[in-house]
Amino acid sequence: LTTRLPAVGTTVFTRMSQLAAQAGAVNLGQGFPDFGCERSLISAVNDAMLADFNQYPMMSGAPVLRQAIGTKIGALYGHAYNVDSEITVTAGATQALTTAILCCVHPGDEVIVIEPVYDSYVPAITLAGGVPVAVEMEVTATGYAVPWSKVAAAVNRKTRLIIINTPHNPTSTVLRAADLQALSDIVRGTEMLILSDEVYEHMVYEGHRHESVSRYPALAERAFVVSSFGKTYHVTGWKIGYVAAPAALMAEFRKVHQYNVFSVNTPMQHGIASYMADPTPYLDLPAFYQRKRDLFRDGLKKSRFELLPADGTYFQCVRYDKISTQTEAAFAEWLTTEIKVAAIPVSAFYQQGKESGIVRFCFAKQDNTLALALERLATV
Amino acid sequence: LTTRLPAVGTTVFTRMSQLAAQAGAVNLGQGFPDFGCERSLISAVNDAMLADFNQYPMMSGAPVLRQAIGTKIGALYGHAYNVDSEITVTAGATQALTTAILCCVHPGDEVIVIEPVYDSYVPAITLAGGVPVAVEMEVTATGYAVPWSKVAAAVNRKTRLIIINTPHNPTSTVLRAADLQALSDIVRGTEMLILSDEVYEHMVYEGHRHESVSRYPALAERAFVVSSFGKTYHVTGWKIGYVAAPAALMAEFRKVHQYNVFSVNTPMQHGIASYMADPTPYLDLPAFYQRKRDLFRDGLKKSRFELLPADGTYFQCVRYDKISTQTEAAFAEWLTTEIKVAAIPVSAFYQQGKESGIVRFCFAKQDNTLALALERLATV
Ligand SMILES: CSCCC(=O)C(=O)O
Ligand SMILES: CSCCC(=O)C(=O)O
Repeated sequence: LTTRLPAVGTTVFTRMSQLAAQAGAVNLGQGFPDFGCERSLISAVNDAMLADFNQYPMMSGAPVLRQAIGTKIGALYGHAYNVDSEITVTAGATQALTTAILCCVHPGDEVIVIEPVYDSYVPAITLAGGVPVAVEMEVTATGYAVPWSKVAAAVNRKTRLIIINTPHNPTSTVLRAADLQALSDIVRGTEMLILSDEVYEHMVYEGHRHESVSRYPALAERAFVVSSFGKTYHVTGWKIGYVAAPAALMAEFRKVHQYNVFSVNTPMQHGIASYMADPTPYLDLPAFYQRKRDLFRDGLKKSRFELLPADGTYFQCVRYDKISTQTEAAFAEWLTTEIKVAAIPVSAFYQQGKESGIVRFCFAKQDNTLALALERLATV
Repeated sequence: LTTRLPAVGTTVFTRMSQLAAQAGAVNLGQGFPDFGCERSLISAVNDAMLADFNQYPMMSGAPVLRQAIGTKIGALYGHAYNVDSEITVTAGATQALTTAILCCVHPGDEVIVIEPVYDSYVPAITLAGGVPVAVEMEVTATGYAVPWSKVAAAVNRKTRLIIINTPHNPTSTVLRAADLQALSDIVRGTEMLILSDEVYEHMVYEGHRHESVSRYPALAERAFVVSSFGKTYHVTGWKIGYVAAPAALMAEFRKVHQYNVFSVNTPMQHGIASYMADPTPYLDLPAFYQRKRDLFRDGLKKSRFELLPADGTYFQCVRYDKISTQTEAAFAEWLTTEIKVAAIPVSAFYQQGKESGIVRFCFAKQDNTLALALERLATV
């Protein structure tokens, strides 16, 4: 059996979570909260099951959930997607991303990705027969930035799709209006599409604003915009996400979606839809996570790690290169097994494994988990 | 945007369900029960949510569920899959089927499908860049049969995969030991793989036995075997399925699965696992559905429809060709809008839309739903 994905192994998240479990380490590697969701969200799903919402939903998603998503996007970003033809519920954001790639990338098409790059994009491009073209973010003393002139230079006749991610995993970079303007300038007058991974849309700090692609008509007209309830509602294991796109793109998305998963868990969709009636949980999220971020950053100031900016996501990148000469992978393993705090090496987000002396911690943890991790990290 | 799936429209199931709703018809089209699942299954999922099983499960599936699946397959079919490396939980059977196809079919590979063919297989083959090669079942006076000599004749150097489905949707045919023997003879000594869609495994009637591919070592050694909890537990909207395959095949499956959906709803997996501790629900299923089948068949004997055999699944095919000269699609629409009973035209399961004068009814319905449908069908 010849593999379709020669470069693929077990994800770094799975590997580091396993190592953390073996080592009895505090797991600040894989991104997920170690606390529960609101009980009213659970009740809403239970109510849906008891009300017999247990058979196939519509292929595009339960109408109540598409409506709730459309209302949210309208309120936050001022874009009125048609909830019948422009929003589709997916089995998590990963399925949305992969399905979007499979529906528009033809064999030989080039797809621009920004490195460090979330680990599912490139395998999905490969599966579609496409060619990933990586543009590296610049790492300056004060953090990461997308060099738009290099993105522009990477475009050619074969470029079909540009994938962006804001707030950005793993670097916590939040794109600004000027970034989206630069992207608009690059795509204007071309047939290129955009895939925007915005799963951390509700985690932006210090008064930053999430610049959703759906805010910008010149981008939204050619974009698949992806988000996820797992991150927002502290239920990463529920695997319910969505994609919004203009009707013509969505028609192609649904052709693949229909034969990839057909449809998505019915009672979860109904439960989330009724929970969404109150916007408080996601409106409160920036403050909720900013407090944890600040707690974690303050604690790390007492360590030998150098803090990078963290404007969004629930990740904090730190520079360790004045501490050790090890590769990031080796350093993250050492942290996990010796210091008993698991981290993710940022090199895992580069196709060629670039070494910057930076690892990523997840601060979506209970305060006492963070306190224990900080205590241990101070010993490095 | 050039489509990747030129032949794909809205599925016949969605279209007929919409038409049924518009027409106020009894919906015997799309296959799903119109009754609820057991309340203890719902409680099991609720308990899992309350016990905070809400974060990412393992990529391959929750260990408790893989264990329960392995135990079931061992007990029923005598095959001991390694639950760590040979079973993966999927977001429904459709995702399992499409992922299996994507992981082993390379551009240009041929894939043999048996027509009438479930509507997701061919689009998945197309997406993989493969070439579907259809072999038609023979329609005799007494029902459908797979002509294995024609399957053998369709094999050539490019044939990578043969897809079978037993019990078979839409024809209700249940493969016998002799069929699997014939398939073994065809694949012996070749590198061809098998994908076996067994989602109706627990719906076989009149003492027929489900001949799972996993019973036959010469087939199981090269097969992906797919099933689904949606059909078995009356929760088609939960979208939890699984695939079993030898470790070498499963490794390739997981490479695609990992970047297609990454993992599957955690509380649903835990709830189903604990519900599976009691095998009664699936052991009782044949008797449960045979009673409904017999009720439906007996009622139809008073109509002008000619009954085809229904050895498995929850579908009943009938011949109407002495009643009308309409195409199957037109006849099914007429039944839906005029007689107020929705059916699925079997022609929708043929790539070239072959007309046999046969439509499919789903009898997974409450007795009074079936009674109402029978009353209306008697007026034809
Ligand atoms: C899908 S497992 C990885 C979770 C995640 O997004 C991350 O840790 O970056
Ligand atoms: C996935 S919707 C179709 C349900 C089904 O399997 C059928 O009706 O044949």
